[in-house]
Amino acid sequence: MQIGRVIGDVVASRKNPNLEGIPLLLIQPLAADSQAVGRPLVAVDAVGAGIGEHVFFVRGKEASFPFHPTAVPADAGIVGIVDHWTTGER
Amino acid sequence: MQIGRVIGDVVASRKNPNLEGIPLLLIQPLAADSQAVGRPLVAVDAVGAGIGEHVFFVRGKEASFPFHPTAVPADAGIVGIVDHWTTGER
Amino acid sequence: MQIGRVIGDVVASRKNPNLEGIPLLLIQPLAADSQAVGRPLVAVDAVGAGIGEHVFFVRGKEASFPFHPTAVPADAGIVGIVDHWTTGER
Amino acid sequence: MQIGRVIGDVVASRKNPNLEGIPLLLIQPLAADSQAVGRPLVAVDAVGAGIGEHVFFVRGKEASFPFHPTAVPADAGIVGIVDHWTTGER
Amino acid sequence: MQIGRVIGDVVASRKNPNLEGIPLLLIQPLAADSQAVGRPLVAVDAVGAGIGEHVFFVRGKEASFPFHPTAVPADAGIVGIVDHWTTGER
Repeated sequence: MQIGRVIGDVVASRKNPNLEGIPLLLIQPLAADSQAVGRPLVAVDAVGAGIGEHVFFVRGKEASFPFHPTAVPADAGIVGIVDHWTTGER
Repeated sequence: MQIGRVIGDVVASRKNPNLEGIPLLLIQPLAADSQAVGRPLVAVDAVGAGIGEHVFFVRGKEASFPFHPTAVPADAGIVGIVDHWTTGER
Repeated sequence: MQIGRVIGDVVASRKNPNLEGIPLLLIQPLAADSQAVGRPLVAVDAVGAGIGEHVFFVRGKEASFPFHPTAVPADAGIVGIVDHWTTGER
Repeated sequence: MQIGRVIGDVVASRKNPNLEGIPLLLIQPLAADSQAVGRPLVAVDAVGAGIGEHVFFVRGKEASFPFHPTAVPADAGIVGIVDHWTTGER
Repeated sequence: MQIGRVIGDVVASRKNPNLEGIPLLLIQPLAADSQAVGRPLVAVDAVGAGIGEHVFFVRGKEASFPFHPTAVPADAGIVGIVDHWTTGER
């Protein structure tokens, strides 16, 4: 998984029915030192994250696990809101 | 998922039978600021997108979910047409 | 999926039994303007492609779908032969 | 799989229920010569690794295999602690 | 799949039980011209490869197919030993 910050959302009225009602958020991936790294992506949200929050997200089919048994066609999903992280050694 | 723009299509008369009748579109991935980023790819279309439209697409096996139970051998698929997106913070 | 050109083949006499009898072809991925892009890879062939032909191929577990129910351990597979592609806007 | 070193952990009180009780560790991937390479990532831990230990981890849905039948939404997981590795030729 | 050369092995006494007894080999990926390309990775071996041999390997969940029905948490696996490969056109 990766840590990221929610930076926006996506509105799509025509979409696969299994995506109905699921928030689509824009996430900026972050490095361990909180710097933005890599490109923003669109993720489904399974935990109720808000703009500006730090989250961790999963890529791949696993993004659809929280919506089981609905086969949500998503390849990125927010699965937790990060309180904090620590690095003890580098 | 990523946001992209449909820029063309692919014609293939000989192909896996499970791909018959499914549009194959060329997509240019876009960054959050709408600039083209990365290489165009071929995606199956599950929502009826047209040339020039902004879409969001999924990578991986999830691309075949909308065609279930047909096992469509696709690794990229359009699952929604984007009305707009907003970024509240960066 | 990506478009590519078949540039060679691989001979392997010792291999996983589920790969027996399946052609292993070397593919050079191509960009939308037909230029070679990225590294050649080895793909299983489900459509009878020949050296020099333009194909489109899928990455990931989906490469094994055409061989179902045999669990072919492949992560790239040719699923169609491209007649032509068009880009209407870029 | 890749070899890495555990460099920290992530605390998330709000998360997908299937992640409850599973350690979330920060891993720094290492090259064959033990140098850090690539970006740290967050992984679930199935073997009880500690800060500073060398581990090998798996990416993708396979990260959830050790927690079966719970569908853990993870795309990276520690599956072993490395005693040592050797390279006989390069 | 990709072609690679076996360059070493990994010893891990504490690991996921489903990995017990499966060789963990270090592979250096090779380009079509036999030059090393990209970073070495750890792969499970399903065909009995030895140090110095040319192999082809698969990435992703497919790496666990040869060990079915054991759910081996691996994302890279050697599935064949390469006799030779040819490129007829480039």
